[in-house]
Amino acid sequence: MMHPKMHSTLPTDATPTMRTRPLADAPALASKAVQSLCESKAHFALQPDEARVVLPFLRWVSFTEGAYLYREGDDSRTSYMLLLLEGDVTVDTRASGREDRVAIASLGPGSLIGEMALLDGSPRSTTCIAITAVQAAGLSQGGLDRLAQDHPAVAFKLMVYVARNTADRLRAVSEQLTMVDQVIASLHDELAQLRKTSSLRP
Amino acid sequence: MMHPKMHSTLPTDATPTMRTRPLADAPALASKAVQSLCESKAHFALQPDEARVVLPFLRWVSFTEGAYLYREGDDSRTSYMLLLLEGDVTVDTRASGREDRVAIASLGPGSLIGEMALLDGSPRSTTCIAITAVQAAGLSQGGLDRLAQDHPAVAFKLMVYVARNTADRLRAVSEQLTMVDQVIASLHDELAQLRKTSSLRP
Repeated sequence: MMHPKMHSTLPTDATPTMRTRPLADAPALASKAVQSLCESKAHFALQPDEARVVLPFLRWVSFTEGAYLYREGDDSRTSYMLLLLEGDVTVDTRASGREDRVAIASLGPGSLIGEMALLDGSPRSTTCIAITAVQAAGLSQGGLDRLAQDHPAVAFKLMVYVARNTADRLRAVSEQLTMVDQVIASLHDELAQLRKTSSLRP
Repeated sequence: MMHPKMHSTLPTDATPTMRTRPLADAPALASKAVQSLCESKAHFALQPDEARVVLPFLRWVSFTEGAYLYREGDDSRTSYMLLLLEGDVTVDTRASGREDRVAIASLGPGSLIGEMALLDGSPRSTTCIAITAVQAAGLSQGGLDRLAQDHPAVAFKLMVYVARNTADRLRAVSEQLTMVDQVIASLHDELAQLRKTSSLRP
């Protein structure tokens, strides 16, 4: 289901199928997961006893430093999301028609990644690389299915958590966009000024 | 609970408290709401009979052309979201420390707005203005509470719908950011070139 240790020097196809273990096998990580899920004090936030209901549906996933968590454009194995418990990752994307990549974000413990592909089955829209060793909790579509079946009220709150997480990122990216628009405006001003100066010269 | 017809020429405080009606009072709009909620063919998508379970929890909200749906920074009356059924709106934000506003998006029927504030109770992060007459379905925090209590499995799928909508917007804004980064890079190149040319002149 998942594919850790997919090192950048290996071609995608060489990735071994991942073996995951129940998150409960790592009690310290399981407790971090519960803490992350209950972090918000907002309405509809998961309570600790509800977060513990989610635990049996989570898998423990490890990545070595430099490993790819996701590759942009990958449309297989997209049906899971990861909650980062330890370590940091970078998220980047390829500018259309160019070889170089644009860093979008770096994320650490408590961040949720890959929920977009899980929800709509679309190809991964970004590439995500571990910049340290990473421990994460994975939730597959099948796991979410079973959680929704067995504990719909908890699944509802978990989805509020996911939506809130996505909304936070949307807010951050929108702010970045606003700032970048200002940079463009001032670069345009500077260019216009330079052109004017340069045309005034004899 | 909601505040339509809050025209830009009126001070915020003059906004009359809104009167909303059950969405079921407008059968044509109710049917559009069901259609929007069921649009996705993805896993966890609401089925028509499930969307009809949501209907009694939705309110019918109208805005005249030019009316404010939300004002950036407003931290009262944030506990509802709107599903646009007819008409179009613009979403914009104020660039920090500047008077002018930056347009982020224009949205039409099928779009969800205001879900971020509903989920985390934070102040409105954008301003949203009706550019035509707008008909929308409103869901309050209280309504969502009752839906989750009475029909948790449907509430779960509705939250998947919300999260997917937010994820779509995140994807779109991230793409915009990537393109804008390219514009900045080429403006920098152009500036460097101009400076060089200009310093080479006698």
